[in-house]
Amino acid sequence: MDNVIKKIEALGLGIHISKGIERTIIGVIGDESIIRNQPLDALPGVEKVMPILKPYKLASREFKPENSIIDVDGIEIGGNKIAVIAGPCSVESVDSLVEIAAGVQHAGATLLRGGAFKPRTSPYAFQGLGEEGLKYLDVARKKTGLKVITELMDPRETELLEKYADIIQIGARNMQNFRLLMEVVLQKKPVLLKRGMSSTIKELLMSAEYIMSQGNYNVILCERGIRTFEDYTRNTLDLSAIPVIKELSHLPVVVDPSHAVGRWELILPMAKAAIAAGADGLMIEVHNDPGSALCDGAQSLLPKKFAQLMDEVKAVAHAVGREI
Amino acid sequence: MDNVIKKIEALGLGIHISKGIERTIIGVIGDESIIRNQPLDALPGVEKVMPILKPYKLASREFKPENSIIDVDGIEIGGNKIAVIAGPCSVESVDSLVEIAAGVQHAGATLLRGGAFKPRTSPYAFQGLGEEGLKYLDVARKKTGLKVITELMDPRETELLEKYADIIQIGARNMQNFRLLMEVVLQKKPVLLKRGMSSTIKELLMSAEYIMSQGNYNVILCERGIRTFEDYTRNTLDLSAIPVIKELSHLPVVVDPSHAVGRWELILPMAKAAIAAGADGLMIEVHNDPGSALCDGAQSLLPKKFAQLMDEVKAVAHAVGREI
Amino acid sequence: MDNVIKKIEALGLGIHISKGIERTIIGVIGDESIIRNQPLDALPGVEKVMPILKPYKLASREFKPENSIIDVDGIEIGGNKIAVIAGPCSVESVDSLVEIAAGVQHAGATLLRGGAFKPRTSPYAFQGLGEEGLKYLDVARKKTGLKVITELMDPRETELLEKYADIIQIGARNMQNFRLLMEVVLQKKPVLLKRGMSSTIKELLMSAEYIMSQGNYNVILCERGIRTFEDYTRNTLDLSAIPVIKELSHLPVVVDPSHAVGRWELILPMAKAAIAAGADGLMIEVHNDPGSALCDGAQSLLPKKFAQLMDEVKAVAHAVGREI
Amino acid sequence: MDNVIKKIEALGLGIHISKGIERTIIGVIGDESIIRNQPLDALPGVEKVMPILKPYKLASREFKPENSIIDVDGIEIGGNKIAVIAGPCSVESVDSLVEIAAGVQHAGATLLRGGAFKPRTSPYAFQGLGEEGLKYLDVARKKTGLKVITELMDPRETELLEKYADIIQIGARNMQNFRLLMEVVLQKKPVLLKRGMSSTIKELLMSAEYIMSQGNYNVILCERGIRTFEDYTRNTLDLSAIPVIKELSHLPVVVDPSHAVGRWELILPMAKAAIAAGADGLMIEVHNDPGSALCDGAQSLLPKKFAQLMDEVKAVAHAVGREI
Repeated sequence: MDNVIKKIEALGLGIHISKGIERTIIGVIGDESIIRNQPLDALPGVEKVMPILKPYKLASREFKPENSIIDVDGIEIGGNKIAVIAGPCSVESVDSLVEIAAGVQHAGATLLRGGAFKPRTSPYAFQGLGEEGLKYLDVARKKTGLKVITELMDPRETELLEKYADIIQIGARNMQNFRLLMEVVLQKKPVLLKRGMSSTIKELLMSAEYIMSQGNYNVILCERGIRTFEDYTRNTLDLSAIPVIKELSHLPVVVDPSHAVGRWELILPMAKAAIAAGADGLMIEVHNDPGSALCDGAQSLLPKKFAQLMDEVKAVAHAVGREI
Repeated sequence: MDNVIKKIEALGLGIHISKGIERTIIGVIGDESIIRNQPLDALPGVEKVMPILKPYKLASREFKPENSIIDVDGIEIGGNKIAVIAGPCSVESVDSLVEIAAGVQHAGATLLRGGAFKPRTSPYAFQGLGEEGLKYLDVARKKTGLKVITELMDPRETELLEKYADIIQIGARNMQNFRLLMEVVLQKKPVLLKRGMSSTIKELLMSAEYIMSQGNYNVILCERGIRTFEDYTRNTLDLSAIPVIKELSHLPVVVDPSHAVGRWELILPMAKAAIAAGADGLMIEVHNDPGSALCDGAQSLLPKKFAQLMDEVKAVAHAVGREI
Repeated sequence: MDNVIKKIEALGLGIHISKGIERTIIGVIGDESIIRNQPLDALPGVEKVMPILKPYKLASREFKPENSIIDVDGIEIGGNKIAVIAGPCSVESVDSLVEIAAGVQHAGATLLRGGAFKPRTSPYAFQGLGEEGLKYLDVARKKTGLKVITELMDPRETELLEKYADIIQIGARNMQNFRLLMEVVLQKKPVLLKRGMSSTIKELLMSAEYIMSQGNYNVILCERGIRTFEDYTRNTLDLSAIPVIKELSHLPVVVDPSHAVGRWELILPMAKAAIAAGADGLMIEVHNDPGSALCDGAQSLLPKKFAQLMDEVKAVAHAVGREI
Repeated sequence: MDNVIKKIEALGLGIHISKGIERTIIGVIGDESIIRNQPLDALPGVEKVMPILKPYKLASREFKPENSIIDVDGIEIGGNKIAVIAGPCSVESVDSLVEIAAGVQHAGATLLRGGAFKPRTSPYAFQGLGEEGLKYLDVARKKTGLKVITELMDPRETELLEKYADIIQIGARNMQNFRLLMEVVLQKKPVLLKRGMSSTIKELLMSAEYIMSQGNYNVILCERGIRTFEDYTRNTLDLSAIPVIKELSHLPVVVDPSHAVGRWELILPMAKAAIAAGADGLMIEVHNDPGSALCDGAQSLLPKKFAQLMDEVKAVAHAVGREI
């Protein structure tokens, strides 16, 4: 047994020993992949090697059986009340932002989305207004009382973002930008972590674990569609991820149907389906002039259509015992 | 222009000509792929080639703007009332089948599923009871009044199936078994066509078109999950397919969450989500002893759990203005 | 232990018992999915349940360590010499077929492909010439001595196909048309089984097992591209399937780059790559007038281009110690 | 026409006008997605809107018809001679690194890989030695003359990396970390950009465009496998990406079979296939004690096996007219 322990310690892993009558269990704490590549079960005296705990620990339901409720400066995400985040893809002008904010608030949203720093596939595309955009979000927050969520793209801008945002968003393309994940812990601000477009649910939980392992437990997960062969929709919204995450983790789950489907006509049915499947919140792109939006116009709802969405979603929420 | 027409006719395509002042439109009727591979736009006088009609015509919403309602010997699928199909993966014995049938009927199902011929990945797996199984389904139908749906695997068994089934099921693996599709037209029995696990929505509609082009318009489409990289669930249930199909086609859509998720705990939330997204029906695997089921035990609900599902689904159905 | 055995027998599985000093191993023969759904490890006295043999047995390398060489009326597939199958997507006329056959033979092909029955996505597309096409293949065979491969789509046409074909092809869409697989055994004619476009390698081997379990061991596997998110190519050619199949099975592997990439410019590099990766043969679409081909013109090579392909492939074949 | 121009300018796009006799072409420079969401073809006088240039310009073959050859301090990548990069997944100790470096150099490699900063799925996994690792790479470079490639994970470490690396690697998970892409331009050091595991070829070229648009044209692309449903291999190596990239772009392409397949037995055939398909280089994981490797042991070759790979690859390279 000493031999086995020495081997494990040599791999840089933590050890916890539990002696039984017939067997001794050597609990190994650390990366399962290190173990997986080791022929430990070939060592004399070792009966078998098996993974006992999930690779994510702090994010797991075993670690915390009850649901986590994240407090966003008075707005709760993860409780019985469904949180609705709405707003434009990117912040464009203070006037349009305030107008959209007032519209979504009137319809029942309590959080305002809007990108100031935008990750764009093309270097020639509009990259966002930067700090100016953050200031406009602040204006909209002060005028409406809505809480603000906006995306962080660069670890060097973490402090800046934390100054303006009530929730910091980590986008799908940065879900495995591990350095960024390790930064969003300074003030323990809530973090909305979007699932990468080709990430498994396990990988999403591992990325949440990165943030939590640095001491920030205020993590909200977001399903926003995965990449498949189907090309009619922009991505395929994986709603089964909701009950799966609820089973594996205590963290709240928000669904972004706008990015998943990429076409505004499909957003309403998918928003209702998300709530029926158990989502704790919705994130919806709304613009007062989708035809002129600097990004994602095709998937943005007009405020009036968003109000209809809120009405219909409310009926489904009540049907599954939730408030909105 | 004569040159263009001759070229098109030489390809075996139909032609419809519409003369305008500045342009003449030559409508070409037939397979778009023949055109796609032809450099028609390189011919003198041709300005551009563009697809005008969808490749599926009879299945398209343009062809028939109002929703189709399929009559299954008195049970309607595609109207305001949601149809629920329930039963075991495979027919195993007459007693268990009748017991399950009575259970699902009591909970509100109106159609009974059960495979007599089973497509199994392994040649060594249980292949179904064959005609004996069909006879058991008939017994269950007579005892309960439930309509019966069962799968056709072989064109040589079409008449046999049409004798026993109220709906003939074409399974996901046979969605592009075109010879089978062209067979299920003899008595114009309703056909439930399952989406192939890696088929696009467009391909599903093309397969429906195969059946309809032979004269049987009683086609019900079924979303049952697509194959993706996510491995926690058996397949990824693509609920956005529901509003997409509703936009493109007049045919009813039924959702089978059991095969999609592969684990019984996830079926209830996904059934509710399907209805919220606009599905016209559900297909649910129910077994009175899942631990002994000859196939798909892990994804079968006990009748009691199924009754709970019906209660919860009913609330969501009402929330979206549907009956069940 | 009697309890465990009874439970297994009740599931309809075979049993093989091996008594050791500390443990007794109960070997279970049959479908692993039946076991997987059973809580056998919860029974008293059961330490663990593990799969020992692969689900495919006759197709496995364990069953037959040396490579299988399939004899196609004098042409060997699976030996040191690489087999090249070439010809049009579909048989169109006897003249063009004979011309193409002569061209590919001159360049070094030994087998002629050509579809008489074509599985088309659209019911309105050219479906093949049927038996007339088979007769043309026979003419081309007699004139050139090339062996003929053509596709079977319907179990009712098996005898007809066996009369004309030297190799019967099962297409990608029918890889899991299990009734068709069970038919192609009458005369033990060689069968070329194409991998389904979203089938795993394991599923391909299971489908081979279907044919072999009926007594026909003359199975040739064919990789022809899988469906992924990448949309520049028609499918993604999975060349790593070649060494994987070689590791898992004794059956020969042929690669069809034409269907995988869908564009003729890409066929030459992928054909060379296939041979470098260890393929036993190639299947290439060649047409003497791709612009007028009734199907797949965009991916068909002119005979002259095919001759260049043969030259370049030959150099690579020699570099990896193979003849062609 | 003024109306159209104003509308385009209002979208923040550049304009280039070309007047013809029958038509005027308004060239629009900027992000195509902005245009895609605009109903420009509905404006009076607009006949049609079509994308003329590719969204990547500097990376495109149109921009530079001849192949780019990247000079890495005397070693050329992209010319007739194939470049081989080899070394351990992560730098572990100076002794093992120097030993591996000497081994791969002896077998014919000219560049040494080794991670000092490692992106790991788990926060509990070995994260690399950091700057200490970079110093070891410097020692190995001085002892062997091999050029060094290592990964950049954080924009705040760009200067540090540029001090030690001859090629800066951007990993697959950071392919769309746009802020990182915009950093690697300071000294115009060559950059090896890995394709994201679910990125299309077009997206890879767009990310190359990010780097090039900042003034660093020394970009090497790397295919390392994409995520698909096949689970026998870690990823699916998309070798058709090589001829596709060669058609679309002038940039060199290196293939990393080690990460794609994840199992050492498969690396040799896939390395040969990559060269046969036209790759300009290979990137291979080599470790002198794979069983003890701190990461990716299962996919690391022993130096002796790597030497065999070099021999076999050499034969294939010669067969396709390349040196190595």
